[in-house]
Amino acid sequence: MGRRTFLSLLLALLTPGAAIPVPPAVRALNNLHLSTSFTSHPAIVMEYSIHYIQQKVDHFGFNTDKTFNQRYLIADKHWKKDGGSILFYTGNEGDIIWFCNNTGFMWDVAEELKAMLVFAEHRYYGKSLPFGSSSFKDSRHLNFLTSEQALADFAELITHLRKTIPGAKNQPVIALGGSYGGMLAAWFRMKYPHMVAGALAASAPIWQFDNIVPCGVFMEIVTTDYRKSGPNCAECIRRSWDAINRIAENGTGLPWLSETLHLCTPLKHTQDIQNLKDWISETWINLAVVDYPYESNFLQPLPAWPVKVVCQYLKDPSVSDPQLLQNIFQALNIYYNYTGQARCLNMSETSTSSLGSLGWSYQACTEMVMPFCTNGIDDMFEPHSWDLEEFSDYCFRQWGVRPRPSWITTLYGGKNISSHTNIIFSNGDLDPWSGGGVTKDITDTLVAITIPEGAHHLDLRANNAFDPTTVVLARSMEVRYMKQWIKDFYANLRKKY
Amino acid sequence: MGRRTFLSLLLALLTPGAAIPVPPAVRALNNLHLSTSFTSHPAIVMEYSIHYIQQKVDHFGFNTDKTFNQRYLIADKHWKKDGGSILFYTGNEGDIIWFCNNTGFMWDVAEELKAMLVFAEHRYYGKSLPFGSSSFKDSRHLNFLTSEQALADFAELITHLRKTIPGAKNQPVIALGGSYGGMLAAWFRMKYPHMVAGALAASAPIWQFDNIVPCGVFMEIVTTDYRKSGPNCAECIRRSWDAINRIAENGTGLPWLSETLHLCTPLKHTQDIQNLKDWISETWINLAVVDYPYESNFLQPLPAWPVKVVCQYLKDPSVSDPQLLQNIFQALNIYYNYTGQARCLNMSETSTSSLGSLGWSYQACTEMVMPFCTNGIDDMFEPHSWDLEEFSDYCFRQWGVRPRPSWITTLYGGKNISSHTNIIFSNGDLDPWSGGGVTKDITDTLVAITIPEGAHHLDLRANNAFDPTTVVLARSMEVRYMKQWIKDFYANLRKKY
Repeated sequence: MGRRTFLSLLLALLTPGAAIPVPPAVRALNNLHLSTSFTSHPAIVMEYSIHYIQQKVDHFGFNTDKTFNQRYLIADKHWKKDGGSILFYTGNEGDIIWFCNNTGFMWDVAEELKAMLVFAEHRYYGKSLPFGSSSFKDSRHLNFLTSEQALADFAELITHLRKTIPGAKNQPVIALGGSYGGMLAAWFRMKYPHMVAGALAASAPIWQFDNIVPCGVFMEIVTTDYRKSGPNCAECIRRSWDAINRIAENGTGLPWLSETLHLCTPLKHTQDIQNLKDWISETWINLAVVDYPYESNFLQPLPAWPVKVVCQYLKDPSVSDPQLLQNIFQALNIYYNYTGQARCLNMSETSTSSLGSLGWSYQACTEMVMPFCTNGIDDMFEPHSWDLEEFSDYCFRQWGVRPRPSWITTLYGGKNISSHTNIIFSNGDLDPWSGGGVTKDITDTLVAITIPEGAHHLDLRANNAFDPTTVVLARSMEVRYMKQWIKDFYANLRKKY
Repeated sequence: MGRRTFLSLLLALLTPGAAIPVPPAVRALNNLHLSTSFTSHPAIVMEYSIHYIQQKVDHFGFNTDKTFNQRYLIADKHWKKDGGSILFYTGNEGDIIWFCNNTGFMWDVAEELKAMLVFAEHRYYGKSLPFGSSSFKDSRHLNFLTSEQALADFAELITHLRKTIPGAKNQPVIALGGSYGGMLAAWFRMKYPHMVAGALAASAPIWQFDNIVPCGVFMEIVTTDYRKSGPNCAECIRRSWDAINRIAENGTGLPWLSETLHLCTPLKHTQDIQNLKDWISETWINLAVVDYPYESNFLQPLPAWPVKVVCQYLKDPSVSDPQLLQNIFQALNIYYNYTGQARCLNMSETSTSSLGSLGWSYQACTEMVMPFCTNGIDDMFEPHSWDLEEFSDYCFRQWGVRPRPSWITTLYGGKNISSHTNIIFSNGDLDPWSGGGVTKDITDTLVAITIPEGAHHLDLRANNAFDPTTVVLARSMEVRYMKQWIKDFYANLRKKY
């Protein structure tokens, strides 16, 4: 088990989608793939074909002409050449098939919008590795992992699709994405408005940079979720840190904690205690991120409203330290063992061990510098300030690069984005990432949709019988905007000819 | 004398500002510099300070943290912290002091707009060399010479100025540029609208790419200029090519031509004839580009309406070959020897021998791929088709890179730019570059201004008693738009607070 630090917690945090899960098995049938949305109700059959496009490794320099294969998926069952549209998922930090399966919204609206669905994989994730297995070798190989290169891939891909698919040339493309993918969708509309008629940026924390929002807001929202999900729930968690510290000071504390929490690998050193606390913190965060109203399997198989379920074990903050820790175990067990299959809880089995999180860790150390902090007062965590210097040194040790914390603001505009048009920013109030999101209309065509009962990009998930009314409403507003963009696109097209 | 080919002519052509001249001497007075606009009438005293900002060599990758010093000039005599503005010249392919001296318009309007003037040098030109004298060594050193990197430099510079100059933070910045600098101004507003309230793109051939406009349009406009500047003028030039060919076939043709044209270096080989014709063609083109209504010194010291002056020697196409060539010499002599100082005409003294043209030659071989062609019917030149493959091979031999002819369109949108706002595209009808420019309004805020009697970005030059009414009108419209942008900026600012 690697040494955990607050930094590693932050890095795990920094992946807006939290852990990168293993993509669900896909039944290959020549080039045609079928899979079933696990979360859809009733299940949608997702039928798509898998393709590859040759992309330049470096769109912004000419010293190398090296190329790699970017993967993308196409589903055109409901596509109409006449008056149709193209919904383009701007892939984020993970396997595109997993995103495809978890973006039921696109499948649900395809028929109504006569839409072809395209899911583009982000370079350095999934099968889209610029240097194959050497892609993460060092900073030289990682040099082309930036949001700018990813957006350029998308632009080249759309150009290619328009050229090669008969009927696609004069159709409106709409960018959609969630989390980092939502940021990419918004940024894509900002930087390449000639490519897409509009963008749906779901749960996109475009302001979680450069101290545009206070660094503590994320953890405050996590805490609020727990406060609202059960009396004393947040207080129990807040007290647990000192309880762990006190138990750890005891000679038999480490083995006792290891046994009580059913850890697969026993705690051995005092520094493991910090790892333990970070791992627990990450669990609470992940639970808040995926606090969906129905049984789901986004990061882990989980019950409906998992934070409420967890909070059933965390009602009494006045119990003894050992009792509190036993309750904490019960709560953790919901996240790690809802299926009842786990024989122990594996602290190293988090997002950070997957390929996706490797890439994201690098992105967080370069462009995606998101300051996070806690103060233990407005939130239920131990206080940690944001220390850019420490973070920078970590990044240099880890990747040989140093973060440029203001670059994203310089590049994409920070709060000054009002000259752009046709972007929907949707956010769920339960989602900690909403703290860095756009939650108020900026202009008539740069609009915010908030979903009071929504966690992380709930609106992008498939229709479900247990959907709260607010997300149903949000989706219908989103469709209305998209229809307007499509209508405007065709009106402009007619004007031209 | 290097071998000239049609390609080398094209490359010379490809520099929208044509030859890169030596910057005028600047009298250094500590950090304060004074120079006088040579073309202004009455002369403006241009007083500016010279500064440097540390820029990342690579804004789009993190493998290197190497920096270089970008030069920029500031003139703030008329700047007001209260209600003022910042006019930002997006430097193009040459020494920024030379551009500063040739952009009298900014100096003329500074007081009215309470404006600080900033002139930012383009990387790899003037003193802004990322790798010093090694900057042009090979494709590895040249890898960071792109329009994207240049725009990022401008964005970082504006961020820096806003942060460090008290009063600049909440002021509107307006981008201005001519030729390639005009393209950069337009593209800067498109890609970084949060940085600039609007852009004046003077003589910016943003559509001279990717066959958006026919490849022959440039040379057709050159030809039209000569047709309109004197009876039979274009016809004399058209006939001169065959006359040269016939003379060259003669045993004593080469020395005769060398003597008749007063060449500093005599023609020696048959292949020198192509060089000669390309050099003459380039001269006609340059004359059309700088066909200003008053004596000027942009590329060379020249009389008012130099094409008319030249055409006075080219009236009779029916004369003998030797007589025609003698007339051609008289015409060339206007361009190369208006001051009467030259003892011979130097074929190698063209733009291509300067540092600036080295950089532009690389840019033309990578991003700035502008197809040009002639057919000898609609234009007065020998027919040459556009051959991308030949061009690509040339680029590979010359720089070790291959052009990406569609990239600029993918990146900046080609004809699909209607979603942008606040850009003025100004063009002169005499300017061959207007063929690739925006000469019709696209929307209410993406407007075209045409100047019937204007050559290359005449509107950016200082007021002059001999200015045609149309350029005076154009400038006043430009000022009116800029004032509107400034007004809108302050109205929005007040809304925020």
